[in-house]
Amino acid sequence: MIIRVQKLGQGLCKMNHNRVFRRAISYSRPQFMAMTESDLNHNVINASYAVRGPILDRANELQEQLDSRPGSLPFNKIVPCNIGNPQALGQQPMSFNREVLAMVMCPSLIETAASNFAPDAVARAKKYMEALKPATGCGAYTNSQGIAAVREEVCDFIERRDGYEASSSNVFITDGASMGVKLLMQTFMRSPSVGHRDGILCPIPQYPLYSALTTLSEASLVPYYLDEDNGWGLDVDALVSQLDVAAKDGISVRGLVVINPGNPTGQTLAEDNMAAVVQFCADRGIVLMADEVYQENIWRADRPFVSFKKVARDMGFEDKEDSPLKLVSFHSVSKGFMGECGMRGGYFELFGMPPMVSAQIYKLASICLCSNTIGQLMTGLMVNPPRGDDVSAKAYEEERSATLASLKLRSKQLHSTLVALEGVTCNASDGSMYAFPKLSLPTAFCAEAEAAGVAPDFLYCMRLLEATGIVVVPGSGFGQVDGSWHFRTTFLPPESDMAEVGDRLTTFHSALMDSYR
Amino acid sequence: MIIRVQKLGQGLCKMNHNRVFRRAISYSRPQFMAMTESDLNHNVINASYAVRGPILDRANELQEQLDSRPGSLPFNKIVPCNIGNPQALGQQPMSFNREVLAMVMCPSLIETAASNFAPDAVARAKKYMEALKPATGCGAYTNSQGIAAVREEVCDFIERRDGYEASSSNVFITDGASMGVKLLMQTFMRSPSVGHRDGILCPIPQYPLYSALTTLSEASLVPYYLDEDNGWGLDVDALVSQLDVAAKDGISVRGLVVINPGNPTGQTLAEDNMAAVVQFCADRGIVLMADEVYQENIWRADRPFVSFKKVARDMGFEDKEDSPLKLVSFHSVSKGFMGECGMRGGYFELFGMPPMVSAQIYKLASICLCSNTIGQLMTGLMVNPPRGDDVSAKAYEEERSATLASLKLRSKQLHSTLVALEGVTCNASDGSMYAFPKLSLPTAFCAEAEAAGVAPDFLYCMRLLEATGIVVVPGSGFGQVDGSWHFRTTFLPPESDMAEVGDRLTTFHSALMDSYR
Repeated sequence: MIIRVQKLGQGLCKMNHNRVFRRAISYSRPQFMAMTESDLNHNVINASYAVRGPILDRANELQEQLDSRPGSLPFNKIVPCNIGNPQALGQQPMSFNREVLAMVMCPSLIETAASNFAPDAVARAKKYMEALKPATGCGAYTNSQGIAAVREEVCDFIERRDGYEASSSNVFITDGASMGVKLLMQTFMRSPSVGHRDGILCPIPQYPLYSALTTLSEASLVPYYLDEDNGWGLDVDALVSQLDVAAKDGISVRGLVVINPGNPTGQTLAEDNMAAVVQFCADRGIVLMADEVYQENIWRADRPFVSFKKVARDMGFEDKEDSPLKLVSFHSVSKGFMGECGMRGGYFELFGMPPMVSAQIYKLASICLCSNTIGQLMTGLMVNPPRGDDVSAKAYEEERSATLASLKLRSKQLHSTLVALEGVTCNASDGSMYAFPKLSLPTAFCAEAEAAGVAPDFLYCMRLLEATGIVVVPGSGFGQVDGSWHFRTTFLPPESDMAEVGDRLTTFHSALMDSYR
Repeated sequence: MIIRVQKLGQGLCKMNHNRVFRRAISYSRPQFMAMTESDLNHNVINASYAVRGPILDRANELQEQLDSRPGSLPFNKIVPCNIGNPQALGQQPMSFNREVLAMVMCPSLIETAASNFAPDAVARAKKYMEALKPATGCGAYTNSQGIAAVREEVCDFIERRDGYEASSSNVFITDGASMGVKLLMQTFMRSPSVGHRDGILCPIPQYPLYSALTTLSEASLVPYYLDEDNGWGLDVDALVSQLDVAAKDGISVRGLVVINPGNPTGQTLAEDNMAAVVQFCADRGIVLMADEVYQENIWRADRPFVSFKKVARDMGFEDKEDSPLKLVSFHSVSKGFMGECGMRGGYFELFGMPPMVSAQIYKLASICLCSNTIGQLMTGLMVNPPRGDDVSAKAYEEERSATLASLKLRSKQLHSTLVALEGVTCNASDGSMYAFPKLSLPTAFCAEAEAAGVAPDFLYCMRLLEATGIVVVPGSGFGQVDGSWHFRTTFLPPESDMAEVGDRLTTFHSALMDSYR
């Protein structure tokens, strides 16, 4: 922690744990840096993140064309189904949350506009202003782990949800779940420069955040395949066998990612399956990273969301530093019924970790000071909604259930559209915001893609965009069984647009199949 | 970008650019992970960030003690001078900005509360709502580079400030300047795992963000010493000689950090000095990273802020991809007169970079989707304040100049206090929010620190905290000439507290000097 550097000119300069330099008399020669890929970190060059990429870039170009020359394309708007971004497609935010945050943003409103807002919204704004003291409000850096009062709200939520206690010292508020995953990956993936060959077990298909961060960490992605023929089931035997594959190659598997409900696959796990995953991680000293950001997006009545922490506690694992189970659970304000992606709020909870680990994570978080305060407070609002006798409870519940019912309806509409397409199969979405249909594409189409140097599903998605304005992501961006082709689509277009989106997709698909038959 | 993995059971799984695994029949043995430091990334373990650390941890404990047992300590409040966090010490936010953002947060206010707010604030909120379309508002992910309209506002600002054009394709909006620096360091520092030994020239003393990110990037920090005896001057000959020191050690210096106005040192650079730095970077193919977050915090009339971009353009360098000068300039909403640290807003501008570089940075930014929208809009408000005939221009200017005048006054008050202390010298702050006094400490005190295994300035700061509640950061956290001792302090306590803070510091210091004499 203490940096000592010797006086300039004394011969030896040492800085922290970095290398040692000796002074020399020679002068370096001038050089011109052309700045090519070899001048950049090869891990950045190698990383890919398919949810945003050339298809979205093309969509942006088409949007500009529509803006400047309306009527010049075969469609009149771009429909971004590439990303779980509900408010980009017209979903409204929860009024209570926004009222509270408007008052925190401009505290004079607590007095002047109080008549416009519900009294419990005013009370919450006052509570948060109090929690932010001695700062004047939301404009100051907070504790790097997050505002203490919000972490307490998170703990209360976890306790209500799981029936087991939670400690605010284990909770870190983050700029969305992605930033939390990034912090954890950076902490747990060790560098090859000192001889490590670390790996992380990830589902295939997976959300490409995980593959991108694995590449950036110079770690190895050890894939385990979800079983498409069995509702994207997670087979623990596959984990065991892939662990051995990795071990044979000298890879030390340090973590296992499970996304439940699934992204892009939409399945929800049964409790006995989750218990087997927990036992696998505990037996083998692997950190379980549970991505549970879709925990409110549950569409299958007989498969309610259960957290990995609850499963672990039910199995008898305790949150002690000598626990054989090391678990990190992620949550976000971006999904569920709030869909507050732009606020960048979320949290993770550590389980079974010694204080040294949270101290290191705290230090890492502190380097960029803190997550944004509005996202932090939005996290508090997510986990502590008005309920029971609260004045706003009824209105909140009405907004919440309307959004969730509409999402469920749209998931069914989309599924019906997809399975009616020639050569397309698709598991129903138990949860999340996505469907991941499988495409059987004509041989001539695949040959054309190969000739163009792109994957057939990439070509399919690009053609779909050009013909309809619908933006989806090729399965190759998520990983898939070799020789199979998929795309991921959200079902987030508003109800009023779903029929037209379905019609456009159906027309495009039929025409494509006919022309390559 | 396209991920292909082979079918499970077919023998070979390949994922992106990661390693290749072969299946094996053996089973891995169960193992228990105790989770010690050797289980974590050694770069995280090695990184240090002194602005938050044991002294702040102790301050938090003392705050809790004050809350639970008032009167149990020799002071009645903690005064956090460890970090440039103005609103933690009572500074008020700019009203116009907060009104606009409250309306964006809760758009119904645009109608219902319009009578409370200035018409140009209402107009700005409407403008931003329009810029966020087709999203319903600030709750959607934006372009990963930032909202296009805000990037345009940034470009207009740069053009007004420098007299040279700027392109929004070169501007990235970030969660504070720190996150921008992090993105750039990750992009430009290449990995030792593929044989690179990259380094970055950093001032000593420096803001520890740079040393921490250097450690995390597995790069080498190549120090260049600012000349304390000449107002913390930057000597270009020192850059040249340290470059040779590094070259001799096999280090390839890729970047040069300049913090202007200085942090922790408070100096502002003269234009001819900046020109020499620019020429040095251009001649040697070194990326110039210009940390200009204190550009509004200027206290010395004869040394106005001039951006590195302006200096470069005045010298004839052009923003073309074949420019020998590669420059990145950082700015933030956290400093200046706004001090909106909690909003996490800022931007960087690229200069002389080929499109390939911005494409790679864009991809890296997109992995965590986008910076928070409120921080983005706050960045827009920073660079596009009400002015000229705008209704709010006068009120805004009054708030702005009052805050800046008060900061200037407090910088002088603090400096007078510091230089009156026995054995303390301190350059006046030309800019920024800090003073970095040099301490001549008694031999017996230094011996006591050594016996305790801490640096003398660390012990001094810890004792200061325990005696007075004032939190400052030891110079060892920033780097300093070997054998010299300093601390960094802000001058952010409110005017009404400055006299008392000065008295407490003076009393503590005199007593310490006396007891070790």
